Amino acid sequence: MTLPAELTQQLTTWRRDFHAHAEPGWTEFRTTSAIIEVLRELGWETVYGPELHEDSARLGVPAAEVLARERERAVAQGADPELVEAMGEGFTGVLGVLETGRQGPVVCFRFDIDSNDLVELRDDSHRPYAEGFASVNDAAMHGCGHDGHAAIGLGLATVLAERKDELSGTVKIIFQPAEEGVRGAHSIVAAGWFDDVDMFVATHLKSNDGKGNIVTGSDGYLASTKFDVVYTGIGAHAGGDPEKGRNALLAAATATLNLHAIPRHSGGASRINVGVLSAGEGRNVVPRRAVLRVETRGQSSEINEYMFERAKDVVAGAARMHGIEHEVTVVGRADQEAPSSQLLPYIRACFEGTPGVAEIRDSGGPAGSEDATAMMKRVKECGGLATYVQIGMDTSWGHHTERFDIDEDMLAVGVESELKIVLGAAEFLDSLGRDHGEPVPPEA
Amino acid sequence: MTLPAELTQQLTTWRRDFHAHAEPGWTEFRTTSAIIEVLRELGWETVYGPELHEDSARLGVPAAEVLARERERAVAQGADPELVEAMGEGFTGVLGVLETGRQGPVVCFRFDIDSNDLVELRDDSHRPYAEGFASVNDAAMHGCGHDGHAAIGLGLATVLAERKDELSGTVKIIFQPAEEGVRGAHSIVAAGWFDDVDMFVATHLKSNDGKGNIVTGSDGYLASTKFDVVYTGIGAHAGGDPEKGRNALLAAATATLNLHAIPRHSGGASRINVGVLSAGEGRNVVPRRAVLRVETRGQSSEINEYMFERAKDVVAGAARMHGIEHEVTVVGRADQEAPSSQLLPYIRACFEGTPGVAEIRDSGGPAGSEDATAMMKRVKECGGLATYVQIGMDTSWGHHTERFDIDEDMLAVGVESELKIVLGAAEFLDSLGRDHGEPVPPEA
Amino acid sequence: MTLPAELTQQLTTWRRDFHAHAEPGWTEFRTTSAIIEVLRELGWETVYGPELHEDSARLGVPAAEVLARERERAVAQGADPELVEAMGEGFTGVLGVLETGRQGPVVCFRFDIDSNDLVELRDDSHRPYAEGFASVNDAAMHGCGHDGHAAIGLGLATVLAERKDELSGTVKIIFQPAEEGVRGAHSIVAAGWFDDVDMFVATHLKSNDGKGNIVTGSDGYLASTKFDVVYTGIGAHAGGDPEKGRNALLAAATATLNLHAIPRHSGGASRINVGVLSAGEGRNVVPRRAVLRVETRGQSSEINEYMFERAKDVVAGAARMHGIEHEVTVVGRADQEAPSSQLLPYIRACFEGTPGVAEIRDSGGPAGSEDATAMMKRVKECGGLATYVQIGMDTSWGHHTERFDIDEDMLAVGVESELKIVLGAAEFLDSLGRDHGEPVPPEA
Amino acid sequence: MTLPAELTQQLTTWRRDFHAHAEPGWTEFRTTSAIIEVLRELGWETVYGPELHEDSARLGVPAAEVLARERERAVAQGADPELVEAMGEGFTGVLGVLETGRQGPVVCFRFDIDSNDLVELRDDSHRPYAEGFASVNDAAMHGCGHDGHAAIGLGLATVLAERKDELSGTVKIIFQPAEEGVRGAHSIVAAGWFDDVDMFVATHLKSNDGKGNIVTGSDGYLASTKFDVVYTGIGAHAGGDPEKGRNALLAAATATLNLHAIPRHSGGASRINVGVLSAGEGRNVVPRRAVLRVETRGQSSEINEYMFERAKDVVAGAARMHGIEHEVTVVGRADQEAPSSQLLPYIRACFEGTPGVAEIRDSGGPAGSEDATAMMKRVKECGGLATYVQIGMDTSWGHHTERFDIDEDMLAVGVESELKIVLGAAEFLDSLGRDHGEPVPPEA
Repeated sequence: MTLPAELTQQLTTWRRDFHAHAEPGWTEFRTTSAIIEVLRELGWETVYGPELHEDSARLGVPAAEVLARERERAVAQGADPELVEAMGEGFTGVLGVLETGRQGPVVCFRFDIDSNDLVELRDDSHRPYAEGFASVNDAAMHGCGHDGHAAIGLGLATVLAERKDELSGTVKIIFQPAEEGVRGAHSIVAAGWFDDVDMFVATHLKSNDGKGNIVTGSDGYLASTKFDVVYTGIGAHAGGDPEKGRNALLAAATATLNLHAIPRHSGGASRINVGVLSAGEGRNVVPRRAVLRVETRGQSSEINEYMFERAKDVVAGAARMHGIEHEVTVVGRADQEAPSSQLLPYIRACFEGTPGVAEIRDSGGPAGSEDATAMMKRVKECGGLATYVQIGMDTSWGHHTERFDIDEDMLAVGVESELKIVLGAAEFLDSLGRDHGEPVPPEA
Repeated sequence: MTLPAELTQQLTTWRRDFHAHAEPGWTEFRTTSAIIEVLRELGWETVYGPELHEDSARLGVPAAEVLARERERAVAQGADPELVEAMGEGFTGVLGVLETGRQGPVVCFRFDIDSNDLVELRDDSHRPYAEGFASVNDAAMHGCGHDGHAAIGLGLATVLAERKDELSGTVKIIFQPAEEGVRGAHSIVAAGWFDDVDMFVATHLKSNDGKGNIVTGSDGYLASTKFDVVYTGIGAHAGGDPEKGRNALLAAATATLNLHAIPRHSGGASRINVGVLSAGEGRNVVPRRAVLRVETRGQSSEINEYMFERAKDVVAGAARMHGIEHEVTVVGRADQEAPSSQLLPYIRACFEGTPGVAEIRDSGGPAGSEDATAMMKRVKECGGLATYVQIGMDTSWGHHTERFDIDEDMLAVGVESELKIVLGAAEFLDSLGRDHGEPVPPEA
Repeated sequence: MTLPAELTQQLTTWRRDFHAHAEPGWTEFRTTSAIIEVLRELGWETVYGPELHEDSARLGVPAAEVLARERERAVAQGADPELVEAMGEGFTGVLGVLETGRQGPVVCFRFDIDSNDLVELRDDSHRPYAEGFASVNDAAMHGCGHDGHAAIGLGLATVLAERKDELSGTVKIIFQPAEEGVRGAHSIVAAGWFDDVDMFVATHLKSNDGKGNIVTGSDGYLASTKFDVVYTGIGAHAGGDPEKGRNALLAAATATLNLHAIPRHSGGASRINVGVLSAGEGRNVVPRRAVLRVETRGQSSEINEYMFERAKDVVAGAARMHGIEHEVTVVGRADQEAPSSQLLPYIRACFEGTPGVAEIRDSGGPAGSEDATAMMKRVKECGGLATYVQIGMDTSWGHHTERFDIDEDMLAVGVESELKIVLGAAEFLDSLGRDHGEPVPPEA
Repeated sequence: MTLPAELTQQLTTWRRDFHAHAEPGWTEFRTTSAIIEVLRELGWETVYGPELHEDSARLGVPAAEVLARERERAVAQGADPELVEAMGEGFTGVLGVLETGRQGPVVCFRFDIDSNDLVELRDDSHRPYAEGFASVNDAAMHGCGHDGHAAIGLGLATVLAERKDELSGTVKIIFQPAEEGVRGAHSIVAAGWFDDVDMFVATHLKSNDGKGNIVTGSDGYLASTKFDVVYTGIGAHAGGDPEKGRNALLAAATATLNLHAIPRHSGGASRINVGVLSAGEGRNVVPRRAVLRVETRGQSSEINEYMFERAKDVVAGAARMHGIEHEVTVVGRADQEAPSSQLLPYIRACFEGTPGVAEIRDSGGPAGSEDATAMMKRVKECGGLATYVQIGMDTSWGHHTERFDIDEDMLAVGVESELKIVLGAAEFLDSLGRDHGEPVPPEA
């Protein structure tokens, strides 16, 4: 079984279109609009807008002005104005549902669709630029491969629609917004869309990992908390009245150094990053405002919690030092969740034999953070099985760098193998003696 | 002698129009355009655009994109498109020249016209907001009174045009751009416009100094160097590959703290301010770029030089610490220049008796920095006399704060007193036995 | 088999005597003297003084004045003056050798004997203080259990001497100086004393690990580099001439923060500690000298090297920032070395059945650093087998704290089990088909 | 009038003896003992020990162990054991009183006698070392010329004793301890010894100021607060348990940087110095204790207060950052006090004509801090006149450096001129119509 050349070509076309119109978290108006249009064409039902999200559980949504500007931009770039309006205050993303009408399990896939806040390299050594599909949007770039994920999701929707008659049960494909910053999963989970899922697979393209190497149960993700810090001091003329100021930038600079100096934890890996610092209004004015965008991580949720608690002390102490106010806002979070070990042999079997697959491992994977863990956790709580699959690529630049590019050959590998996951799901779950199609008690 | 009520009213109208359309240094397209139009109407000759500036001596000019955007904005806000085009790449400001055709001295005034990079307070306690003339431009606000300076300049041009028949010699009024950041004077001086000046007076409204109190020879200005620092490191995923990054923000934060910690100087006042720090692209990316906007000051040029030299060491050391590149660009500078002591009694006499003037002192003034010192220096080098006048206001908020507002009553004080300066200039210079109208050897 | 009560009592007596006379690395004059005297009494040969060490490979030896003072102190506290003189410039430690005269393997044990630079708690809640055997030496305390190690070594020497007739081959017991700071092993290894060893066992008491729990092959040790930094600036009167100083303390403080902020490594655990900072001469003098005592660690030698390289950049950059000189001196180092897996079942068998032993594991152990790895490495290079054994204790305070105390019950566990190691060594090595008694090719 | 050669020689002998036996503040046991012996020999009454000081007003007294050790040292270096015992817990210094028995004013001189905490240069380029009178005491050095001050005081006592018959009223000479750190004056003032003084003169040798140049009314001193900070965190093994520590050194390093970064004050000169930082016990232990010795200064007491208040915020914030305890103890302070302008012409007249005197100015002087201001303040409050005299030297190295040395020629200048001050005091005070010999109302 191999995909038709036309579909393989279409995967690349979709991916490059998404790449060129990169949209950061909660502003995926055009991307979502395009996906909805394809799904509808294929006969999938779609859930989007406020229906998709429990509003109170959304994290890290941009300001209303930003959303308004981005909606306009999206429409100018070809998004359907009605759909964009329906997504309103950043209710982006879409859930595609394919009901077969036949009794069977609920199999769910997750593909994330948002871009990074990166400035893409504009240099002929970078293929997207050389071949004319680099991002046209300022400071937005697909530096993590979600453009490819979205394309795999559409490819999977296509082949499933074509073979709908061979399927039983229900297939759900969630095109998730705002994975960067681990913000977007929580409100979709809270809205209940994962409560009836029997089998859940999240998918990620992984660079620098050997072309075609597969991880069936990625377990390396770190727990993480994303937070913003705002310091508010008092401005003053730096020449005439320096003593009247209360310098928010000095507080922010001190906090930055001391945040990075939080002691390592003997229990396992920890991380901290002040990714953005923005402070001050003019060269000759004592800075009265500073904003930091920070994240902590930990190999376990406990280690992440340790980092976050220490970080809050550092942030508060820096404000105390300079006699200024501060505010900390959590804008994203991810816990750890292990893949269901019962599921991994099945996933392995589905990838084995797919053209382009090289080695298959059952654990490993990158040390980033993922809010798909919230979906995995909910599926497991409701009695389903869940895992996270990595598809390896042999690329020379890491994720989240201005030179990142994916290996488009791997798109078909994802589509084909995940089609097999759907085709055999009912039989596999029967073999475990699991009552699918309805919630079962969680595994221990 | 008092100004006609109509002109007094017009001073306020001009000032509020400039205030509402605040334009930072080198982007004073609309302000310059409006001034040129008034000067032309009054019969003054005008010099503007590239003719006004020695291009190679311009400091701290914004990037071409910024200038293009600002030109568009200025036109949208009513600037004459032809004049704006003539100002092209930020050749803003205008020199008005009134030739009387009669032999006599060259008397020159300087008024600066640019705004600060401040966000104006939008609150009814702030008169410009309450009365509807707060700045309509984002992050641009007249927080230093240059809107008032420009209005005084136009008022002076008006009364001089009306009384042209009583005058001899030449009057020049320079409406200078980019005083904030001490950037704009150098290229006008380098173009030679001050080489023939016999008497030079710069003017500044001073807050918190007692309504109507005058300083005839402001000598408190600090020497200053304005510079930008750009750090360039290496980005990396903060969770997956932190060790592969080279963190430009850590370098910038360390530099900021250590810059502020440069030792005080026993020889007199020194200052340092990192007014702006902007670093990083995304929360989960090791920041690969950081930009600092910095200034040093000193009570003498030597002390400022000490600060700047130490600052360069700090900046370079922070780069070395984190294994990254750095670049330092000087974007503004001011030296110290003492007023001509011979001139002060005359200036005093011209302010005495003007309605609204309270106490008059011959020295003092604020501890900011001024590039008018470059004009003063050049005038003195060429044998002329030069001073810097402060006009006191009783305001409750300092310069360069988001609540700054001027006392509009002082505009007429400036116009009236400086008219007197022109009227008596020839006689005063004669009384000193000075050959005016042509260069004389510099005073010791 | 159980130890005679008299010997068990003697183990405690020895340990408490060493505890009361704690001696930091390279100053173990009294401890070494006492050990030599016991060994001689038992009939062991002893190697000590410059013969024991390759001088050029010694790391982190204190200054001559310190050694002179410590020699005097040791003699005042009962050390044999002749032995102390023989140890001269810090050539402490002793190798005991028991030649059976019968063909057989060379079995070697290592016990470290130095104390920490800690101030012991003087409080009745701390048993050594309450029972009168707290350290009498200022800022020297056995906070790592080496007092217990030395006692186990003497106990083992005692039982081996008593049962010499049952033994074959050679037994070596190295009482190693200066393990703290991973300084003392290198020069003994370089002198060749491990080149003929067939089986090597290092021993450590481990707190907080469950009473009697044994690790036969401790593999958690981190590679480490210990280094001193000296910054030399220029002193000046802080009130009168602050600008003339070059502040070594500001450099040291900046370095300290940035050292702790060196990014974590995705490849495994890393550590950094500025354990001591000492700077300045007087409150009103700009500090012209600062000394830092620093260590880096890594889960692999590569990670440690990464930390050390980054640390050198930080240290150099801080000097550049403040215009001062700096010097970095390496005073200790440890690499990683895995235990010989073939040896672990034998070690397990020797501990099994010893009264007081609870659970036995074959890997694990603390994340400190150990220079016994240098001995292990050399033994393995020369064809021998090597491991590192941990003996667990259920104590409430961690190593290197001012409240540390050992569980003296564990001393006998060590003596008894390690006696069994010697008794069965020849047979075990024969069972592996190893040619012992002479070097064999290294294992892969 | 010139001093006899023998006395001139004796001045140098005294000075070199004091130099060789430098004693920091509150440990001047030997220096005080030697001075008392000379004064007694000359027939002066002496007040010393607890009688001289109001105990509760003493600042910055060393710990009891230090005092005990220093008393022992002083006796070993020739101090009178009875006198040393009388000085007990650091009640050093002595007041010499010469009662003439004749009605007249109380004229008082102050000479400070303590050394700095400096390590003297041991190099032949440094005269005290080359000529064998460098300090024999570790980390104690006369780096501020107080050895010379004490010698001038003894010289003055000698000539006054010789000419007692020509004098009227009372002469007091206070040999003050602990001027370094501005600690010693307060408790002597509080004990009332200055309440009856009509004329007060403090004296200081000033380097780098031109040989023989005199300042009659030194007014450049800065207000100052001296304080110690102790941070107490939690120790932990830096390899095994880094997350369990609370790092006092990180807090201290952060505090140090941010203390030096406290904004300059537009009202005048400010200073800050963290002169000493001492932290940590061992390289591999997270530092649980850090001590900082800090001072702030200001051109006015208000500016100093501003610095001290900001400093306390910084210190507290750094503790908050790292979750540790902190304590701030004030150990010294000095305010500003202007010299009595009425007195200066008289002082000028007394120095004029003295051999060795060059230029005389009435104001100026160094920007250090002085607790003699507390004496000046008290004398003025009680109706007396007070000033502070500088005697210039042409030396190449500044105060408080390891190479400092005085110009011994200036000792005689001080003795001779100040003898004249006593001889003419009654007549001068009469000429002002001042009721001397009893308190008069303070001058405005």
